[in-house]
Amino acid sequence: MDQRISSLIGSIGPLDEATMERARARQSALAKPPHSLGRLEDLSIQISGICGEDADMTKGRVIVFAADNGVADEAVTSAPKSVTRIQAMNIARGFSGAGVLCRQFGAECEVVDIGIDWDRPLPGLVDSRIRRGTGSIAKGPALTRDEAERAILAGAEAVSRAREQGIGLIGIGEMGIGNTTTSSAVLSALMELPASETAGRGGGIDDEMLANKIAIIDAAIARLHPDPGDAIDVLGKVGGLDLCAMTGAYLSVAANRMPVVIDGFISATAALCAARLAPRAADYMIPSHTSIEKAYALIMRKLGLKPMLTLDMRLGEGSGCPIAFSIVRAAMAVYRDMATFEDLSIDDHYLDGIRDDRRLRGDFA
Amino acid sequence: MDQRISSLIGSIGPLDEATMERARARQSALAKPPHSLGRLEDLSIQISGICGEDADMTKGRVIVFAADNGVADEAVTSAPKSVTRIQAMNIARGFSGAGVLCRQFGAECEVVDIGIDWDRPLPGLVDSRIRRGTGSIAKGPALTRDEAERAILAGAEAVSRAREQGIGLIGIGEMGIGNTTTSSAVLSALMELPASETAGRGGGIDDEMLANKIAIIDAAIARLHPDPGDAIDVLGKVGGLDLCAMTGAYLSVAANRMPVVIDGFISATAALCAARLAPRAADYMIPSHTSIEKAYALIMRKLGLKPMLTLDMRLGEGSGCPIAFSIVRAAMAVYRDMATFEDLSIDDHYLDGIRDDRRLRGDFA
Repeated sequence: MDQRISSLIGSIGPLDEATMERARARQSALAKPPHSLGRLEDLSIQISGICGEDADMTKGRVIVFAADNGVADEAVTSAPKSVTRIQAMNIARGFSGAGVLCRQFGAECEVVDIGIDWDRPLPGLVDSRIRRGTGSIAKGPALTRDEAERAILAGAEAVSRAREQGIGLIGIGEMGIGNTTTSSAVLSALMELPASETAGRGGGIDDEMLANKIAIIDAAIARLHPDPGDAIDVLGKVGGLDLCAMTGAYLSVAANRMPVVIDGFISATAALCAARLAPRAADYMIPSHTSIEKAYALIMRKLGLKPMLTLDMRLGEGSGCPIAFSIVRAAMAVYRDMATFEDLSIDDHYLDGIRDDRRLRGDFA
Repeated sequence: MDQRISSLIGSIGPLDEATMERARARQSALAKPPHSLGRLEDLSIQISGICGEDADMTKGRVIVFAADNGVADEAVTSAPKSVTRIQAMNIARGFSGAGVLCRQFGAECEVVDIGIDWDRPLPGLVDSRIRRGTGSIAKGPALTRDEAERAILAGAEAVSRAREQGIGLIGIGEMGIGNTTTSSAVLSALMELPASETAGRGGGIDDEMLANKIAIIDAAIARLHPDPGDAIDVLGKVGGLDLCAMTGAYLSVAANRMPVVIDGFISATAALCAARLAPRAADYMIPSHTSIEKAYALIMRKLGLKPMLTLDMRLGEGSGCPIAFSIVRAAMAVYRDMATFEDLSIDDHYLDGIRDDRRLRGDFA
């Protein structure tokens, strides 16, 4: 493994247990029945353990990794490859669904070109191109080991850059026609499951295309022998540049002690790869919305996460992240601003003759 | 039935089918795979049918109806009655969980005192008191028919007032110790189900208290014979002032053609009562978060709704509403601001030599 990747993995520490303990104590001092704010409470404890209770999460950024996948030429997708390029630019220009959602929830959106199949840098995109798309997994490996590792490092760099720019909250999205196929291939390889259990309809393919997609994945794994114990080998052989970069981004987020929001199926697949490389990385992850792609639930179970939103979205592009950002911020606002039982009892004079505030703690307990 | 209530019900019209058809057409013209924004698309169509595509939803208000319930004296609750008053004031002062969430999501919060057991108006609350709490359903009916109807009208009035004040989006919350008991009683009466299927642990009661709660509900229904075909009879006999006012608020929201967000179990119970009185009222409702109270799922099925958020919250106070407000607003932002396939093709000159935007529509279809 590239020494920079192993040092990235090595630098991922555990959540800060002492800060989390303080956060738990504060949550039980807040004037409400125990755990009545549910996952907002859990989030505040997790965030405290990641970056402290006072971390500034005003600036959030959704990083969208865009790349082409050779397998898109194998009739497994509802849209042709050229849509990757066009849509990546639309996202960068803020015209896409994800762009509007980012604006609406006050999040930045950065599109990183990690390997769109085009001959020159595209306007508005960060140029981190490793190569012009991947090889088709139906014919050979998607990437060489070296290319996969460089893509992982480029993904990590996007996060370090965000960190330097004062970003406190990261979301990981993607744009890459064919990447539900590569995601299912990566999952099948990592979990040693037949493609029939990991592949779904992606952008909306019919029965025949789905059967073809499944056959291609099973054949690719049989031919390329990705090592289930080596996520980088899997990502290189049957994954893609987008999945590699996203995996690197998840690792870097954890190394930089930042909270990160998972978008849909593809984003979750990369999250699982990162957790395979560095199990602690999962502690920094926050799920957003349920994907209707069937293997999504499988990944969430493996990561021990439960999505917060059920919106039947399947757009990708990081579109679920900005909505989750607002929930994360709300969790921290409640944590910081809500009154404690003690605040209420010292505030009695306001209560116009009501003298039993002090009983509140006992009442709820 | 009070003539003002029947005229309120009579004034509830259907959603505007022509506007919804236009919204559906726009959704399929937006540059994304069909229905890939899922429920954000559905919301934009529903909102269009309620109040038009250009309705101003900048100002949202969570109306929290606070009242005492006589049944709280029967050892069915985890907190004593006095908490209703104290917590209602904390909500009004913005110190509670719901208050912080309202601020965080830019929503107003109004607390309406519809019958807290206190001898004079409470500071910061809107005084709409019908009586000082209800009678215990363990001993007699909660309210007279006249009181129930006056509470319904007072709830309706809170919405008309909001409407006059430029509010475009309403959330319905509550504060009333004992109101999971009355809600379960109302549901059991309306759906003709034993209390064992409608009663849960509320604020967190133990097995013994739960058994008592169930026995009290079943006995109340056996003794008072609420008429399952008459929601007002049910609300008066085994419900409460909070549930009555919330029911009136849901009716008024629909009559005023405004979208309304349901909070948790109690808010949903009132929503079901409103839909029993005026089936069309359900078309104006938007669910927010899943309640862990078990009969919640039953109500959602009856209303044909699916919650958007899974946050394991059980605070009440309308706390789920402001989060849902932000999703509703986002749905309308996407609807209004996202590019259509046509926008993209007329914008070709920007695309630096990329000339196949026009194919995008075909690509996705």
